[in-house]
Amino acid sequence: MKKKIYMVLDIGGTKIALFFFDPKGRILGKIFIPTKKWANKKTAVSMIYDTAKRFLQKKNMEMSSIKKLAVGCPGPFDHKKGKIFLLPNLHFWKGFELKKGLKRKFKVPVYMENDANLAGLGEAFKGSGKGHENVVYMTFSTGIGGGFIHKGRIVAGATGDAMEIGHITVMKDGPLCGCGKRGCLEAVSSGSAMARIAKEGLKKNKGSLLNEVLKRNGRIRVEDIVRAVRQKDRFATKIWFQALDYLAIGIADLIQILNPDIVVIGGGISNNWDLIITPLKKGLKKYAWERPLSACRVVRARLGDEASAYGGFKLLS
Amino acid sequence: MKKKIYMVLDIGGTKIALFFFDPKGRILGKIFIPTKKWANKKTAVSMIYDTAKRFLQKKNMEMSSIKKLAVGCPGPFDHKKGKIFLLPNLHFWKGFELKKGLKRKFKVPVYMENDANLAGLGEAFKGSGKGHENVVYMTFSTGIGGGFIHKGRIVAGATGDAMEIGHITVMKDGPLCGCGKRGCLEAVSSGSAMARIAKEGLKKNKGSLLNEVLKRNGRIRVEDIVRAVRQKDRFATKIWFQALDYLAIGIADLIQILNPDIVVIGGGISNNWDLIITPLKKGLKKYAWERPLSACRVVRARLGDEASAYGGFKLLS
Repeated sequence: MKKKIYMVLDIGGTKIALFFFDPKGRILGKIFIPTKKWANKKTAVSMIYDTAKRFLQKKNMEMSSIKKLAVGCPGPFDHKKGKIFLLPNLHFWKGFELKKGLKRKFKVPVYMENDANLAGLGEAFKGSGKGHENVVYMTFSTGIGGGFIHKGRIVAGATGDAMEIGHITVMKDGPLCGCGKRGCLEAVSSGSAMARIAKEGLKKNKGSLLNEVLKRNGRIRVEDIVRAVRQKDRFATKIWFQALDYLAIGIADLIQILNPDIVVIGGGISNNWDLIITPLKKGLKKYAWERPLSACRVVRARLGDEASAYGGFKLLS
Repeated sequence: MKKKIYMVLDIGGTKIALFFFDPKGRILGKIFIPTKKWANKKTAVSMIYDTAKRFLQKKNMEMSSIKKLAVGCPGPFDHKKGKIFLLPNLHFWKGFELKKGLKRKFKVPVYMENDANLAGLGEAFKGSGKGHENVVYMTFSTGIGGGFIHKGRIVAGATGDAMEIGHITVMKDGPLCGCGKRGCLEAVSSGSAMARIAKEGLKKNKGSLLNEVLKRNGRIRVEDIVRAVRQKDRFATKIWFQALDYLAIGIADLIQILNPDIVVIGGGISNNWDLIITPLKKGLKKYAWERPLSACRVVRARLGDEASAYGGFKLLS
């Protein structure tokens, strides 16, 4: 009998990941293509196709084994047409009808979803959210995003834009966000926000270790702030606690609105769970009601960069 | 053939309403019992039963016609046991297992829901939200509450506390809320918040019409503020616009999180729709993304104080 394969494309900032699943949800393999390789829209789809073909040939399988394809998209897109609006590191894809292109080339059904929604579905299906009816997923990284999985299904909203939780307003008339609004959660609590706040405040904090970092590297990243927090740098610690205090407001709002059984936090910064959980819980106690809070576990994501892939598989199966 | 009746109990602050529906969702009748009449838990259930019985006798129907019963509860309760925690105007019901009591007396299945969730379901099923997949309902009244109806069903959350949208934090470390937290939407935008803000600021606003109101009535209610706004009172207008600006933050957050097709606003204050819609839309433009906002209609509720009753019927049918 011919093998069946479900393929998931996870579009990232610097690379596109191709995952191949068997019908039982086991990963048969994964390959990465650096995004800088893409020349234009046409070759993008061909390159994905050729990469998949080479992979399958090595495993003694045929392209016709691929039965369905899911795509995780890291930015806003037209959910009806599968057309990409704008991706920061793939700006030449603006207006590209990726779904149509893939459908034509692969000749299989193609499903496209926001990548944070897919990661949430993955965590709800196979990760930390397994077994729960109301799962809130949050990426805590350079940006802040999320997904809400209700009874095993993504709540996508009217235009697929649900759970853009990085862009709720937590500080009225606060700092400008990359999205154009002011005081978004992402503008005060994300990795890039912390880096911006650090840079802005360095002159007044000459004693901070972050001054040396800036001199050495020409920039400050959230990783540098975390390292400085671990070294008990006062300025970095202040930035960290403030960011987490606002993050607690955002998560408390989600608890008041969605009353989840579990909040699963993923994304690069979540690897510093030991630094996160104590101030976060303190903030949640302040900003959320006792009853929904005590019914809600707040945990780390478990699937790392495979979360969206597992979500994609779940979407197809 | 014997008639079938679905009964809905809507518990309010000053009265309990009994609605009787035929299986097609038409209201056969409604009766109100003032809450001050209740002496204790036991007589409450008996009084509801006797009131229903008298009503049915007049219509030449029997109690055995009642097949199911739904209860809309205006405050937090234990969703598993149907036990009431605390209702402001019915404090002697604290800890009362209303659901069990009704079940025992009426001998029919009893369903209990938060009244804002029921009102949302009613509006989604028969009111302004009809035909939409993602309906956000909000009560804008003395307090602020809401419901989220996703594909025709209430999203109740892990403990039935979803959509407590009056208690998301819109002003960090802001004014104390009745719930014990600070800076809740309800503490800055609700009718009672506006009244409190007015009273606090009167000394500095000697020219305001609200001074006379306070002298005359000994208190200021939101109705007085609305009247003063219509009379172009500067102080009242300032309070009104500020409350609506924060209300816009709350609704924008819901749009970013739930991406609804429609936001339906009910509650006493929503009767002043002409004063609400312009500042609200201005605020939404500031605090929400263009795409989910342009996909979302913001409208007035249509069913008035029958919304919860229709929601209760929908729950039973």
